[in-house]
Amino acid sequence: MPQELPAVPLTIEGSSLLHQMFRIRWKDWRALDCSTRRSIAQEFADAIVPMQHSAIFSLLGHKGDLMIVHFRNSFVELDAAQLAITKLRLNDYLEGTASYVSVVELGLYESTVKTYKSLLEKGVDPGTPEWKSEIEEVLARQSEAMHARLYPTIPDAKYVCFYPMNRLRGESRNWYMLPLEERQRQMHEHGMIGRRYAGEVKQIISGSIGFDDWEWGVDLFAEEPLVFKRLIYEMRFDEVSAVYAQFGTFYFGIRVQSADLAQMLA
Amino acid sequence: MPQELPAVPLTIEGSSLLHQMFRIRWKDWRALDCSTRRSIAQEFADAIVPMQHSAIFSLLGHKGDLMIVHFRNSFVELDAAQLAITKLRLNDYLEGTASYVSVVELGLYESTVKTYKSLLEKGVDPGTPEWKSEIEEVLARQSEAMHARLYPTIPDAKYVCFYPMNRLRGESRNWYMLPLEERQRQMHEHGMIGRRYAGEVKQIISGSIGFDDWEWGVDLFAEEPLVFKRLIYEMRFDEVSAVYAQFGTFYFGIRVQSADLAQMLA
Amino acid sequence: MPQELPAVPLTIEGSSLLHQMFRIRWKDWRALDCSTRRSIAQEFADAIVPMQHSAIFSLLGHKGDLMIVHFRNSFVELDAAQLAITKLRLNDYLEGTASYVSVVELGLYESTVKTYKSLLEKGVDPGTPEWKSEIEEVLARQSEAMHARLYPTIPDAKYVCFYPMNRLRGESRNWYMLPLEERQRQMHEHGMIGRRYAGEVKQIISGSIGFDDWEWGVDLFAEEPLVFKRLIYEMRFDEVSAVYAQFGTFYFGIRVQSADLAQMLA
Amino acid sequence: MPQELPAVPLTIEGSSLLHQMFRIRWKDWRALDCSTRRSIAQEFADAIVPMQHSAIFSLLGHKGDLMIVHFRNSFVELDAAQLAITKLRLNDYLEGTASYVSVVELGLYESTVKTYKSLLEKGVDPGTPEWKSEIEEVLARQSEAMHARLYPTIPDAKYVCFYPMNRLRGESRNWYMLPLEERQRQMHEHGMIGRRYAGEVKQIISGSIGFDDWEWGVDLFAEEPLVFKRLIYEMRFDEVSAVYAQFGTFYFGIRVQSADLAQMLA
Amino acid sequence: MPQELPAVPLTIEGSSLLHQMFRIRWKDWRALDCSTRRSIAQEFADAIVPMQHSAIFSLLGHKGDLMIVHFRNSFVELDAAQLAITKLRLNDYLEGTASYVSVVELGLYESTVKTYKSLLEKGVDPGTPEWKSEIEEVLARQSEAMHARLYPTIPDAKYVCFYPMNRLRGESRNWYMLPLEERQRQMHEHGMIGRRYAGEVKQIISGSIGFDDWEWGVDLFAEEPLVFKRLIYEMRFDEVSAVYAQFGTFYFGIRVQSADLAQMLA
Repeated sequence: MPQELPAVPLTIEGSSLLHQMFRIRWKDWRALDCSTRRSIAQEFADAIVPMQHSAIFSLLGHKGDLMIVHFRNSFVELDAAQLAITKLRLNDYLEGTASYVSVVELGLYESTVKTYKSLLEKGVDPGTPEWKSEIEEVLARQSEAMHARLYPTIPDAKYVCFYPMNRLRGESRNWYMLPLEERQRQMHEHGMIGRRYAGEVKQIISGSIGFDDWEWGVDLFAEEPLVFKRLIYEMRFDEVSAVYAQFGTFYFGIRVQSADLAQMLA
Repeated sequence: MPQELPAVPLTIEGSSLLHQMFRIRWKDWRALDCSTRRSIAQEFADAIVPMQHSAIFSLLGHKGDLMIVHFRNSFVELDAAQLAITKLRLNDYLEGTASYVSVVELGLYESTVKTYKSLLEKGVDPGTPEWKSEIEEVLARQSEAMHARLYPTIPDAKYVCFYPMNRLRGESRNWYMLPLEERQRQMHEHGMIGRRYAGEVKQIISGSIGFDDWEWGVDLFAEEPLVFKRLIYEMRFDEVSAVYAQFGTFYFGIRVQSADLAQMLA
Repeated sequence: MPQELPAVPLTIEGSSLLHQMFRIRWKDWRALDCSTRRSIAQEFADAIVPMQHSAIFSLLGHKGDLMIVHFRNSFVELDAAQLAITKLRLNDYLEGTASYVSVVELGLYESTVKTYKSLLEKGVDPGTPEWKSEIEEVLARQSEAMHARLYPTIPDAKYVCFYPMNRLRGESRNWYMLPLEERQRQMHEHGMIGRRYAGEVKQIISGSIGFDDWEWGVDLFAEEPLVFKRLIYEMRFDEVSAVYAQFGTFYFGIRVQSADLAQMLA
Repeated sequence: MPQELPAVPLTIEGSSLLHQMFRIRWKDWRALDCSTRRSIAQEFADAIVPMQHSAIFSLLGHKGDLMIVHFRNSFVELDAAQLAITKLRLNDYLEGTASYVSVVELGLYESTVKTYKSLLEKGVDPGTPEWKSEIEEVLARQSEAMHARLYPTIPDAKYVCFYPMNRLRGESRNWYMLPLEERQRQMHEHGMIGRRYAGEVKQIISGSIGFDDWEWGVDLFAEEPLVFKRLIYEMRFDEVSAVYAQFGTFYFGIRVQSADLAQMLA
Repeated sequence: MPQELPAVPLTIEGSSLLHQMFRIRWKDWRALDCSTRRSIAQEFADAIVPMQHSAIFSLLGHKGDLMIVHFRNSFVELDAAQLAITKLRLNDYLEGTASYVSVVELGLYESTVKTYKSLLEKGVDPGTPEWKSEIEEVLARQSEAMHARLYPTIPDAKYVCFYPMNRLRGESRNWYMLPLEERQRQMHEHGMIGRRYAGEVKQIISGSIGFDDWEWGVDLFAEEPLVFKRLIYEMRFDEVSAVYAQFGTFYFGIRVQSADLAQMLA
């Protein structure tokens, strides 16, 4: 009888992410004269743009007017970016409505199964020093190989869709109680769908266990918004989504370039 | 043994929709003198009316005083409409309480089953280039045939009922795990009820996966409000609603014509 | 084998109802001088009192200070009543905290079963013109016979208890999937309890499917408040309540007569 | 086969209770000069103290700064107490964050079982005049015997813990569908735990069906706060709590004497 | 057949804890001149720093800007600390967004099983005076031995992760209905994972039954934030977490030293 594989899949992490949603206090803003508005908007654009790896989106609907997305090398840098925004004059006209804190994550289901199996076949037991050092080597190798995906630039696409999600831990259906290989099988099928949309959608998965209220955040970037609906709808029929995915609030936005911002706030 | 049909039904999309719910800040509004109020209300009516495909409703209850519904050809146009409203003077007296972002959608359950079956009978395998090109052809043909329903004008009815909804993904009852033909059967029965109300209610279904927090938005328009209750109650005994429908907040409103608006805000 | 009865029970509708809950902005109110307060309170009382079929209650607890209940002949009249209140000076000192929109409803479970059975026995099939015309006749006859209950005056009792409710659509227990006769049996038992309290409590059921977020609203009126607790507690052991009732927020209030209002706002 | 006992347990009621939670608007309060603050605080203490059966607690955490508990002989008196507070100057510096409306209740599970059994053995049928008159006699006798517990003074303890609760009505576990004797057995075991804490904790149960959003409110009073945790934790392993108890928000406070109030608001 | 062990595990308690989350009113704050800001910030730092066992963290995201954590010897001291903050000038620029009240707790599952078994083997019955005195002796001995862990200083780490949690009481899966030894087994496995992170994470568990809305609060302190995610993710595959853990809001913060505070508020 084959030994059961350990349950925890290997994951590697990269950039620290902060999504900030703001409502604009239009009444107070409109009470300013035109040149003050222009000057404040310019100060804001000048501050965000040189922030490497920050991007601004106009949100549809009442959940917020602006979403600012920050990709950084550490949480300390995120904290500094967050604080920097509070010091801009535009901040007096912003009301924070939501946010999300996470870290870019790649779940290595395929390598995990391969590595665990091969170690067990070699007679290495989980938790032993040899096991640990082999795992660390795999993680180091993968982190290096995946460096570009772990520390991505914010895709330069026109539309963004962001939402947080959990895996179900229900009384009779519980993702965390499934054997590793079953989870790997389901994630593989799930990935196959994503792959078919590879040219149209850029997807960035971030983990937020310990940092925010859901387990993962999902960012989708595309030049054509309907592709978000088609991709997510198709995935919803996948077992891993149909049965085990729970979704939070969806934020859908349109890229705002520095010049658009002036126009938007004119 | 017949091959199982692929799970995902074909859908086609049309207009982009934004529902905006606002509470009026009556106290600040009443503090204005009469002629300023008249002028601001006129500016608002003048701006909304020439917005083709926007309509105003007076909401019953405290969820909002006004609901503005926008039908547009793209999300960029919706974003512009949303921004335009923030620039009107009346906006200083409005407080956004809710919103909904979606896109008109027709789910082609009947054609899907027919098409999938016929392709499988011809020996065409899902995912092959031939399969894809046949599917694209069906979608193109249907989009053309259904153009009027995909890009509707806002019905000119006196009453509106809007609500978002999901299909259940419970631990033992899961819409997304039912075979396509079972879903088609249930949707067909559901449609039969709708058809009996065809002369009395105009229904517009929009999809919001990826755009907002529920899977679909439903707009009902009628000249007689009780018909909303009768239609929805009758449908609630349908298997697809009784078991698989989850509903969000209901918004019920009465059409406000440009002249009524002046009166309402007088 | 006897044919199964159609699922949808016959219902008839009457008055349109609006419940409005308000918190008083006491600080702003107290800042007014005594004679202004008196004048504003008088204007309010003068406006509500001649509104036939509107009543004011003082709510216990922080959910609101006042509940205004409107019974009208149509939603258009309700909309006018709602708008009229926004135009009173007192409205500057009110904050809407909740509301409920519904229509008086009588569910005719007994007649439904009798009518459906008799039609089926006569060989009339559901959906046929003969079926429809017989049903319409029953509805017309019942609407006439029940006119006083469909268009009630607001009972002149000292205490009110209002709450919205749904029937459960759970994964294993689903009201809407029970056969009509089983629902009729449970509703009958439920009604038997109500009947025992007939002298003490006046109950008005209103339907809100399509108008508000729950399926029904329940108003209880009595001269002695403990009877609300006893009636609802006793009903909770009924199968139809124990298993299938889901309750929203409860509002409990004491009648405010025109003269009391002046005192309350003094 | 023994006849099944009727489901509804006998209960008797006493004092009407109102819990009011307030946040202090510290900024506005601090803006007052010292002697005005002293005068307003004194007015408040002078008003609450002579209110027989009202007590003030300082809440820990952000749910509120003050909790005022009122025990009265009727809801009309509670309404007057609530209104009286709105008329004090301190009220301008208070923001109501929560409240609870209920009535002291004793559930007579033991007498109910005894009485029902004895009546059935005597051949008296539920609902008959004889049944009713016997029940009324039991209720009257118990109300008299329990008068002190039904109309308690507010215990003079240092700490309070208040929370509302429901009994579960789940799809497979439903308190209201259990036979009376099974509920009596579980309540008895539950009471045994409470009895072991009798010297340390004073517990007052109030019923709120029809008055507020949960079925019961629980007040615990003690001189040592850890005893709250120990009592409730121990009870949580009881079947009646483990399976059937659902809890709302917990409020934990420290008694504020009239003199402390001046200090707290200094 | 061995006698079943009593259900309630022994626990011992230590420091009283208050977590306070605040949003800074940046607009009002920025409206102050530079030297006033410096003086107010200094007053705040001077007040918090001498508060032994209080620490300040900068929160990531919109849930709050600051989290202040207080460890005290009693709830009375916590109440004083809470009140002291309301009296600082900075408080005018703070808005409380959340809080958590709890007490450091050690659950003695291992000793409980050992003690209960040994007492039963000696023929001592639960609830007897001998049983109680033996239990009290165990509690006293453990409280003394664990004094340092019961009354900890706030760890001097750079990062904090705080979240509240419950144990599931579902209809088919109920932590509180599991036999003591099964709970002890699951807690033991759970502890084994924690132990592997002992050098990297300092964990403080506090109980909040009776004090706040969840059963426990968890504080994790570390010098490297990713370790929070790895620890909690690994634990999530444990039976006790996968099946029985329910989590509230997560707060993730970075330590703010007195000097940083001046900078942050500059």
